[in-house]
Amino acid sequence: MNLTLHHWQLDPFSRQVRIALAEKGMRIRLKEERIWDGRQDFLALNPAGTTPVLSFSDEGGRRAIVGARAALEWIEEISAEPALLAGSAITRAEIRRLADWFDRKFDAEVNAYILYEKMEKRMTGQGAPDPDMIHQGRLALREHLTYLATLIDARHWLSGNGYSLGDIAAAAHLSCIDYFNEVPWEKYPPVKEWYGRIKSRPSFRALLRDRLPGMTPPPHYDVLDF
Amino acid sequence: MNLTLHHWQLDPFSRQVRIALAEKGMRIRLKEERIWDGRQDFLALNPAGTTPVLSFSDEGGRRAIVGARAALEWIEEISAEPALLAGSAITRAEIRRLADWFDRKFDAEVNAYILYEKMEKRMTGQGAPDPDMIHQGRLALREHLTYLATLIDARHWLSGNGYSLGDIAAAAHLSCIDYFNEVPWEKYPPVKEWYGRIKSRPSFRALLRDRLPGMTPPPHYDVLDF
Repeated sequence: MNLTLHHWQLDPFSRQVRIALAEKGMRIRLKEERIWDGRQDFLALNPAGTTPVLSFSDEGGRRAIVGARAALEWIEEISAEPALLAGSAITRAEIRRLADWFDRKFDAEVNAYILYEKMEKRMTGQGAPDPDMIHQGRLALREHLTYLATLIDARHWLSGNGYSLGDIAAAAHLSCIDYFNEVPWEKYPPVKEWYGRIKSRPSFRALLRDRLPGMTPPPHYDVLDF
Repeated sequence: MNLTLHHWQLDPFSRQVRIALAEKGMRIRLKEERIWDGRQDFLALNPAGTTPVLSFSDEGGRRAIVGARAALEWIEEISAEPALLAGSAITRAEIRRLADWFDRKFDAEVNAYILYEKMEKRMTGQGAPDPDMIHQGRLALREHLTYLATLIDARHWLSGNGYSLGDIAAAAHLSCIDYFNEVPWEKYPPVKEWYGRIKSRPSFRALLRDRLPGMTPPPHYDVLDF
């Protein structure tokens, strides 16, 4: 199966899929999609115009697996090892709760402020970041980090004993914020320790090499022992 | 298993879970949660403070299945028939794509305008709806209805031949907008025909009986042949 992942480097949803594919050892071709350009061929694959999209061809023709929620479950269904959604039905529900927390709550409260102001406005020529909006995002981020620290203090990984799609969702979202040097790691030692474990996994390496032209991450961004 | 669903009548996410439970014939106790009140007992079940939450007790103590994404998959895992997420891995990905479309895109483009202005502001004493915001939501709604009509013209149900969580997501979101008489059904005959099929299912009956004090739905809201 010749898989192509249509992605954007600093899209937290695309990053989740990249990590999961790397964990499973599934080889893919990466295709960068600047979703702001509204490329017609891409809209044919996904009318929502958003990344990520996994595409491939089989006897049924051209296929598209659209969005992180669908793609992560699909990857888990076609490639069982290592399991990223393991455990009882209750544990699986907890993993999906965490993924949803980041994909909807963190996205609306943090990304919509920090990523929007610092990345999306620049990509779309909408001018300088609004400091008030960034401040809003920072306040929300601190609440999320406090919650994460509580979870990590109680559990080795976010959803319990095993590394899962919950950790992948949290790390993917945080890593994009970290690219803009907006994560106060020193104030949240359990989160920093957990993120160090995530960064050390081979599945995370490619993300740490991402660079957007004209936007340089802080020196600690790709340092494993940061 | 004594299941309690913590829900809000016009929360599209709660409604999806109510429909799925009814399709499976699973009996539950409904508990209305006014999430704006921030009840401490409820926050202990779900720190995000959002509905829906399914709760029950087992040998492990009090359990909470949080959010529609986790709850719908959990329901499907513990109760196989009738299948709401049936088919090949590709079909299942298509069902989840549709659910995600409504939970993220429709929610951000339509609910955040129409439901927020017409319901949430009233529930939280924030005054009258802003006509400009409602207009925004209506414009986006028309695009979603056009897309739905295209899908329904090509397929009997949204994700293909079978009724699925994709139909449930779409119908749950649209039904909340319809409560406020904001769906121009006559302009989208395929969508109207499909919604008539959905309304006629016994799993939808309880939703059509919902009434919020001081907010009366249009006469067609609970008419099956509307």
